[in-house]
Amino acid sequence: MKIIILALTLFLNLGVFAQKDDSLQIREMFDAALVEGHSYENLRSLCKDVGARLSGSPEAEKAVNWAKVLLESYQFDKVWLMPVKVPHWVRGDIEEAGVNGKPMSIKTLGGSVSSNGKIEAKVIEVQDFDELAELGEEVIKGKIVFFNRAFDRRLISTGDAYGGCVNQRWDGASQASKFGAVGVFVRSLSHKKDKHAHTGSMGYEEGVKKIPSVALSVEDADMLSELLKSEPTSLAYLNVNSQTFPDKDSYNVIAEITGSVDPDKIITFGGHLDSWDVGEGAHDDGAGVVHSIEALRIIKATGYQPRYTLRCVLFMNEENGNNGGKTYATVAKEKGEIHVAALESDAGGFVPRGFTMDGTPEQIRQMQSWESLLEPYKLHIFKAGWGGVDIKPLKDQNVPLIGLRPDDQRYFDHHHSDTDVFENVHQRELELGAASFASMIYLIDKYGLGQSFAPLKDQ
Amino acid sequence: MKIIILALTLFLNLGVFAQKDDSLQIREMFDAALVEGHSYENLRSLCKDVGARLSGSPEAEKAVNWAKVLLESYQFDKVWLMPVKVPHWVRGDIEEAGVNGKPMSIKTLGGSVSSNGKIEAKVIEVQDFDELAELGEEVIKGKIVFFNRAFDRRLISTGDAYGGCVNQRWDGASQASKFGAVGVFVRSLSHKKDKHAHTGSMGYEEGVKKIPSVALSVEDADMLSELLKSEPTSLAYLNVNSQTFPDKDSYNVIAEITGSVDPDKIITFGGHLDSWDVGEGAHDDGAGVVHSIEALRIIKATGYQPRYTLRCVLFMNEENGNNGGKTYATVAKEKGEIHVAALESDAGGFVPRGFTMDGTPEQIRQMQSWESLLEPYKLHIFKAGWGGVDIKPLKDQNVPLIGLRPDDQRYFDHHHSDTDVFENVHQRELELGAASFASMIYLIDKYGLGQSFAPLKDQ
Repeated sequence: MKIIILALTLFLNLGVFAQKDDSLQIREMFDAALVEGHSYENLRSLCKDVGARLSGSPEAEKAVNWAKVLLESYQFDKVWLMPVKVPHWVRGDIEEAGVNGKPMSIKTLGGSVSSNGKIEAKVIEVQDFDELAELGEEVIKGKIVFFNRAFDRRLISTGDAYGGCVNQRWDGASQASKFGAVGVFVRSLSHKKDKHAHTGSMGYEEGVKKIPSVALSVEDADMLSELLKSEPTSLAYLNVNSQTFPDKDSYNVIAEITGSVDPDKIITFGGHLDSWDVGEGAHDDGAGVVHSIEALRIIKATGYQPRYTLRCVLFMNEENGNNGGKTYATVAKEKGEIHVAALESDAGGFVPRGFTMDGTPEQIRQMQSWESLLEPYKLHIFKAGWGGVDIKPLKDQNVPLIGLRPDDQRYFDHHHSDTDVFENVHQRELELGAASFASMIYLIDKYGLGQSFAPLKDQ
Repeated sequence: MKIIILALTLFLNLGVFAQKDDSLQIREMFDAALVEGHSYENLRSLCKDVGARLSGSPEAEKAVNWAKVLLESYQFDKVWLMPVKVPHWVRGDIEEAGVNGKPMSIKTLGGSVSSNGKIEAKVIEVQDFDELAELGEEVIKGKIVFFNRAFDRRLISTGDAYGGCVNQRWDGASQASKFGAVGVFVRSLSHKKDKHAHTGSMGYEEGVKKIPSVALSVEDADMLSELLKSEPTSLAYLNVNSQTFPDKDSYNVIAEITGSVDPDKIITFGGHLDSWDVGEGAHDDGAGVVHSIEALRIIKATGYQPRYTLRCVLFMNEENGNNGGKTYATVAKEKGEIHVAALESDAGGFVPRGFTMDGTPEQIRQMQSWESLLEPYKLHIFKAGWGGVDIKPLKDQNVPLIGLRPDDQRYFDHHHSDTDVFENVHQRELELGAASFASMIYLIDKYGLGQSFAPLKDQ
C-alpha cells in the first residue's frame, strides 16, 4: 500500500511539474499574441493590400507573394512554394436578376455557367429536392427554380444550420435542370437578413444541361417568397456572364521550424490563402492564415524548441476545388512524410471556444487531457468532430485532424459576402484564436497523440 | 449488495427521467427564444423609441412607462412600480477639452462638477495613485492630472482589465485634488482604440475640493501621452458645465408569475432599466432588460408552472447610485420576503458562456450539477463569482446571487460610449442569452439551491 501511495505521489508530483511548465509556456504564447501580436496587422495587410483572392486571379498570385515575403521576414528555418493547379472561374461584369422588373441583390455562385444573355421566366419556389421532384417536369420546365430553405434557427451551431441548407447551393442547379428548369435562385446561406448575397461553390452533375445559379440576399429571398404568394405568375429575369477558363498554376505557401528531436515527423497546421472574390476574405480564411503564421511566430518567439517539425501551410484553392489540400496530401504520400497531426483554422476569427478532432477515441482522450491547461483561456470544446477541408485529404494517411472552433454565431453573417472584411474582425478575438492554435500545436508537439512513434512523456 | 445496486439503478433511472424532462423544457425555451423570440425587437424598441435613459432624465421616465406597458401586454400575474429616489445629474451643453489648441474627444464623467468656465493648465500624466503621491503637491498643484493606465492586454477577461483601471475613473478627481490639481483627464476604460470616449460614474471624497473629471477617448489618450513626451509643457484646456440637481422620483418596474407551490418564496431576476446618457444603453443594460422580460415570457409560453414566485425586476439607477437595487433589498427586508435566489444580467448581450454565483460552496455545486443540461447550448462557466450590482444589496439577507456571463471580449468596446447602440447587438447572441437566463431560473425553481425551505427533488 505504501509503495502504491509513494508511486502515486511521485506520479502526481511529476504531473504538477509538467503542468506548471506547460502553463507557463502557454501563458507566454498568449502574452506574445495579445500584447504585441502581429495577427491583426497581418490580417489588415492581407485584406487591404491584397483583398479578395479567388484561385486563378491576379489577387491570388499577389497573396502567394504576400505570404512568402511575410513568412521569410520571420526567418523560420524554411519557406517554400508548392505548385498547385487551380481552376479559374471568373465572375462576369454582368450580374443582375429581379422580379417584375424590380432588381434583386444577387451573387453568381462560383462555378456557374453564364446565362448567355437575359433569361426571363416564371419562378417556382421549393424547399428541397423532394418537393422539386414532386412538382416534376410538368411544373418546372422552362421556369427558374427558387430554393428557399432557410437556416434552422433552433440549431445552436450555425455550422449545423449551414449543413442543413448547403445542398441547395451545391446541387440545386443540377437537380432543377433535370426537370427542365432554365435557371436557379438560391436563398443565401445565412441567418442574417440583409441585402448582401452570399456566394459559394456549386457543381454540375455529369450529363445534365448546365443552367446558371445565383444566390439571392436573404432580404430578397423573403421578398420574392412573399411576392409569389400573392402573384405566383410573377416574371423574373436573370443575366450573368461568368466564365470558366483553363486551369492555372498557383501555390501552397509553406514555412517550417525544423524539429529538434524528430525532424522527419511533422505537425502541419494552416488555413487557406484563397478566398471568394467578394469582400476581403477576412474571416474566411484570412483569420486562419494569420492564426497559422502567428502560431509559428509566437512558438519561435518563446524560444520553444519543437520536438517535431512544425509546418505552417497556407493552402490554395479551398473554396472551389481544394486542389491545395489534395496536392499537399499527394506530395506527403509520395515523399513518405510522417504526420503527427494536421490542424486547421478555417472557421473565422471569432473568440476561440476549443477544438474538434477527427481521430481515434484514444487521440480525442489525449486532447481532452489538456483541457485544464486551456480552461484559463475559456476554451471548453474538446471533442470528436470536423478537422478542416484542406487537411481532410491527409485522412487516408491516418493523420489525426484537428479543427480550431471559434464561436460561430456571427460566422455565416459574413461568409462569402461583401461584408467579410477586416472591419468585421475583432482584434482580441483574433489574437486569442492565434494563441489557442499555438497552444494546441505546442501540446501535440510535446506529448504527441499516442502514436507509437510519439514519446508519451517529456524527455 | 444487490439492494445497493437496485437502489442505485432506481436512482439512476429517476435521474435519467428527470434529466429528460429538464432537457425538453430547456429545449422548448431555447426554441421559443430563437424561432419567434421577442428579445431583439424589444431591444430595438427600447433603444430607438426610448434611447439613452439616465436616472432622473425624461427618457428614464419614458423607459419606466415603456417597460410597464410592455410587461402588462404579456399578461403576467402582476405588474407594478416600486418607487425609488434617484440622483439627477445632467451633462451640460458644453463639453470640450484639448491640448495646444487641438480639441480632444471627451465625455464628462457622471457626477463631475462643472469647470465653471474654461480651465487652462499644463498636464501631468500618471499611471496610478502611487505615482501621483510621489510627484506630490509641488508638481501637481495647478495642473490637470492625466490618469493614463491602460487595460492590461494579458488579462483574458476584459472585466478583470476594467477592474484594474476603474479606480482612476471613480476616485481620480479626489486623489488629484488633494495635491492641488485643477482638473482630471482619465483614459477611457476600453481596449478599443477609437475616438469615442467612455463615461461612467465618479465620486468625491468628503472634504476635498471638487474638481471636474472627464474621460478622453483612447486615441486621444495615446496622442496626449505621445505629445507630452516631446512637449511636456503643452497647455491643455477643459470646459464642461455639468450639474447636479435635487433627487427625483423614479421606479423599479416589476412583473411576476405567482408560484404554484410556494408563492411566498421568490426568485428575482433582472437587469437595469437606466443607462448612461450616451449611445442607447443597448448592451448596458438594454440586453439585461430584454433578457429578463424574455425569460419570464418564454417560461410562461412553455406552460411551465413555477413552484416559486418568479419576479422580473427592471432596476432603476444602477449606473450612478444603485438606489433601485438598494430600495428593492430594503423593501424585501421590511416585508419579510424570502428570496430563493437573485439573478442578474448586466454584462451585455453577447453569446452566453455561463453563470457565476456569489453563494455557498454547496449552492455553487448545486448549480454545477446542471452543467450537462446546458452544455448543448455551449454554456460552460459555472463557478463562484460576481452576481450583479443591482442584486448585491440582497446579500445581507443571505440570498445566493447569480450573474449571467456572456462573452466579454467586446463588452468594453461599447460600454458607456456612443457606440453602445442596438446595431452593435447580435440577434442570436441576445436570444441565446435570454434562453440561458430562463433555463437557470427554471432549474433553480425546480431544484432549489439547497436551502432548507427548498424541496430537493421534484414532486
